[in-house]
Amino acid sequence: MRSPQSLRNGGGSPSPHARIPTPHHHFHSTVSVHKLKRFNSLILVFRLSTFCFSLASAVFMLTNSRGASGSDSPRWYDFDAFRYVFAANAIVAVYSLFEMVAAVWEISRDDTLFPEILQVWFDFGHDQAFAYLLLSADSAGTALAITLRGTDTCTATSAFCIQSTISIALGFAGFLFLGFSSLLSGFRVVCFLINGSRFHF
Amino acid sequence: MRSPQSLRNGGGSPSPHARIPTPHHHFHSTVSVHKLKRFNSLILVFRLSTFCFSLASAVFMLTNSRGASGSDSPRWYDFDAFRYVFAANAIVAVYSLFEMVAAVWEISRDDTLFPEILQVWFDFGHDQAFAYLLLSADSAGTALAITLRGTDTCTATSAFCIQSTISIALGFAGFLFLGFSSLLSGFRVVCFLINGSRFHF
Repeated sequence: MRSPQSLRNGGGSPSPHARIPTPHHHFHSTVSVHKLKRFNSLILVFRLSTFCFSLASAVFMLTNSRGASGSDSPRWYDFDAFRYVFAANAIVAVYSLFEMVAAVWEISRDDTLFPEILQVWFDFGHDQAFAYLLLSADSAGTALAITLRGTDTCTATSAFCIQSTISIALGFAGFLFLGFSSLLSGFRVVCFLINGSRFHF
Repeated sequence: MRSPQSLRNGGGSPSPHARIPTPHHHFHSTVSVHKLKRFNSLILVFRLSTFCFSLASAVFMLTNSRGASGSDSPRWYDFDAFRYVFAANAIVAVYSLFEMVAAVWEISRDDTLFPEILQVWFDFGHDQAFAYLLLSADSAGTALAITLRGTDTCTATSAFCIQSTISIALGFAGFLFLGFSSLLSGFRVVCFLINGSRFHF
């Protein structure tokens, strides 16, 4: 993870493109473009990881109903916290998919999907909000899973509890990668505020 | 650490005090000092609110044991999630108390408790981490409280469940004010990165 202090460009020798006013908005050195592509690729990897874990978590929770008859066997949607886990992971999966499209667009076309200022704030704001949402849901799910462990629900159908636990663990992994994405998009916001451009190297 | 003033590589309009090299570190216009004091007072109010709500939440949870005999009456420390709520709120209360001291110090002495760069990053980092911690604990507590609502624990001793719910609600209020503090300290970090000083106006 690059600290924003590394922005400094070696103290007394700032990079040329930052000092000379550029006549066109999209004029940047090839080195800078190359580094930006690497940075965007890293974001894409984190988005992909978030998407995979969130989707897996949502699918694990969705398929967590034991017994075809379903008369007294536990189902995930009978529990508020498990519904919350499913909803939060599904939302994050959809959001990550959209952000992956945005990242691929930016890597392939050298331009952001939305106007630049909107894009950096949109990314950072949603990363933060959804990270809080996902952590909240997974914590609630964990509390319920721990409570259920001693009850009849888990002793009778232990597969239900195991699958819930796996789903919640996958959700926490998704939260971790969403947190990394949030750090990177926060870094982009700061770069944008300092340089007036996401070309920050 | 060198001054991050060299961060700004043109491409904007830096504030006057960032451009003119100041002979002394503490030389700033009185207007700027006055505005900084107002900003710090706002932070202090948020810190105080966070402290009050977190402390109230922790105390409400701590005193939540029904029945002197304690043989079969519910006690808060029998539940993992309620222990988590208490611990998170106690940690945030202690942290807020410390930050209140730091804010009062800064208002009265016009200087930060730690070196400036350390202080802004310390505040922002801890605000973020503790906001996640508090939200996670309160979500876990909520999930447990909802689960308990239908059980014998709540029908036999409803005061226990009501007091738990109040404690968790106070914790959410504390989280809200901690989130506001986190926004302000994030703003300070960005100001520090841009101007090389927390004097940002």
